[in-house]
Amino acid sequence: MTHKLPCTLSTIGEFGLISRIAAGVSRHESIITGIGDDAAVTAISAGMQLLTSTDMLVENVHFRRSWHVPYRLGRKSLAVSISDIAAMGGIPRWALLSLAIPPELPLEFVDNFMCGFLAMASENQVFLIGGDTCSSRSGITVSVTIMGEQYPGMIVRRSGAMPDDDIWVTGTLGDAALGLEMVEGADSASLTGSRLPKQSPSNGTVDDSEFLINRLLDPAPRVSAALALAEAAVATAMIDVSDGILADYGHLAEQSGVGGCIQLVDLPLSASFRRHTAHLPVIPYHLALSGGEDYELCFTAHRSNREKIVDCVKKSGIAATRIGIVTSSPEVKVVNRDGRRYTAQIEGFNHFI
Amino acid sequence: MTHKLPCTLSTIGEFGLISRIAAGVSRHESIITGIGDDAAVTAISAGMQLLTSTDMLVENVHFRRSWHVPYRLGRKSLAVSISDIAAMGGIPRWALLSLAIPPELPLEFVDNFMCGFLAMASENQVFLIGGDTCSSRSGITVSVTIMGEQYPGMIVRRSGAMPDDDIWVTGTLGDAALGLEMVEGADSASLTGSRLPKQSPSNGTVDDSEFLINRLLDPAPRVSAALALAEAAVATAMIDVSDGILADYGHLAEQSGVGGCIQLVDLPLSASFRRHTAHLPVIPYHLALSGGEDYELCFTAHRSNREKIVDCVKKSGIAATRIGIVTSSPEVKVVNRDGRRYTAQIEGFNHFI
Repeated sequence: MTHKLPCTLSTIGEFGLISRIAAGVSRHESIITGIGDDAAVTAISAGMQLLTSTDMLVENVHFRRSWHVPYRLGRKSLAVSISDIAAMGGIPRWALLSLAIPPELPLEFVDNFMCGFLAMASENQVFLIGGDTCSSRSGITVSVTIMGEQYPGMIVRRSGAMPDDDIWVTGTLGDAALGLEMVEGADSASLTGSRLPKQSPSNGTVDDSEFLINRLLDPAPRVSAALALAEAAVATAMIDVSDGILADYGHLAEQSGVGGCIQLVDLPLSASFRRHTAHLPVIPYHLALSGGEDYELCFTAHRSNREKIVDCVKKSGIAATRIGIVTSSPEVKVVNRDGRRYTAQIEGFNHFI
Repeated sequence: MTHKLPCTLSTIGEFGLISRIAAGVSRHESIITGIGDDAAVTAISAGMQLLTSTDMLVENVHFRRSWHVPYRLGRKSLAVSISDIAAMGGIPRWALLSLAIPPELPLEFVDNFMCGFLAMASENQVFLIGGDTCSSRSGITVSVTIMGEQYPGMIVRRSGAMPDDDIWVTGTLGDAALGLEMVEGADSASLTGSRLPKQSPSNGTVDDSEFLINRLLDPAPRVSAALALAEAAVATAMIDVSDGILADYGHLAEQSGVGGCIQLVDLPLSASFRRHTAHLPVIPYHLALSGGEDYELCFTAHRSNREKIVDCVKKSGIAATRIGIVTSSPEVKVVNRDGRRYTAQIEGFNHFI
């Protein structure tokens, strides 16, 4: 009897890994030269401009292997970048993927990661055209660059919000942040602790838990809603919600030279969020305001477009909710039902703190 | 008297860092929206195609802080990516930069890194249009995506080499590999050891040492030579030499479905390389063949273009040397002056081994 050695990256080497990745990749007519040359060559559609964005995911900062099975990590690595192109009203097209990986990582991990990455790509008609692979001395780092395109007139920036515009958000907020509390609670290696009592009874079902954790681990970029808004030319400004609606609307407001008033009770919360937190004395709105990783779209629009917006977002299978009004004073505030200012801890996620 | 705390990334936070980086960035008319939105928006020149490439540099894998002052690390981080666009005959245009950095890293490090990165950008008319910053639990990771453009007919791939074409290389080979031996020898933390006797007398001068180490730490991408070759439409295939001429010509040959015969004595060695290794019993050709990090251009061309090639590369201030002939048999071999096969250790750099 012989022992079978686990197949690791050091077994197949860098070029073995690149061939393995390249073998799973789809082709598209816009790709003149894909993986395998010094640079990829692509053709931008006539009349369109190029949209580019890049995101880095670092092990034990953005993800933990104890939470994230590699398939979902692959999906999310691309999803967060696609979300940035969506937030500009762009059509996501091509991706570059760089992986720094410990040489002893099982090949199966990379295979499953790529399987998730390419599934997310395929669902959004995105094509992997290049990247880099190298070894890491500690932990996995994933760096994704996404490219998209759009006609200049349909690109939606952060900078176009006007006073008295409505503030809108797609889907629901705070699910991912609640999911994070849950996986952190379940993870004995948790470093950050949890703001929710871990042992307290919950009214949520197993399905609710799955939904909430899924929102954290496998976010869905809102591409079709964003494209519908871009095509209808109704959004004056748009951003994706990655650091919490308060921080991200703050960026939008700053770039537009405006402020905003957000109604706490209008923040869209999922049924799972409500059931799972029903046992708490107060609704944990801070998760919806500042929790991060929602990957919903926050956008502003003139009030004359309300019906049009509901219609065009509905076609993409999600809801859009009005959560406040753009103000001319530069301050962004959150108010309770009675108009008084909500003063609970409300800060967006900030690295390096 | 008060103690001044060192200013670190945790002092200014993620958005402080982004503002600091954005403040030093130049603008160009091709950039419709730069740093500060979900994605950057750029306009590709009419009739051109998009070239994209990405590279990741990991601390203690690709660089060590004990060798690389941050300014030079910034320069090199961009240079290696620019080299990929050059190797396609492309015009480098825009860059995205992602940094994963330990929160305790002094701000001065990032400032100097950016100063070097932006100097390299400026020297090559490249503009930084976006990126990502996040914290790292161990060491610095730099991920750079470079975008360029070129008319379809002028893009040079790895795949066009024809039997009987000449094999050419710009500049000199092996300097960076010799420089690596030198910094490893000087670095008590060296993990990899050195193939050259560290204590042996050297005939090289201090200037030679500086030149060789500089070739490792501050490589110059061969953009103008590559563009001259692309415009003259003389190169049938091209690649940049990052893993050693033997491995990289091997990639070119594989993509072209050809082989090659490289003349050992024709490999261009710098005067510094020759002087610094004059005390050794044999010329360490393995450094020129397999050392890596030369960032020269290796290209193939029909023999009728020899004069044209020398002329158009000369204008860019470097030399081009014929080092062999493309063969129809798929093997790549290196031969001595007497035609016998050179059999010393000749392998390209491979991560994960």
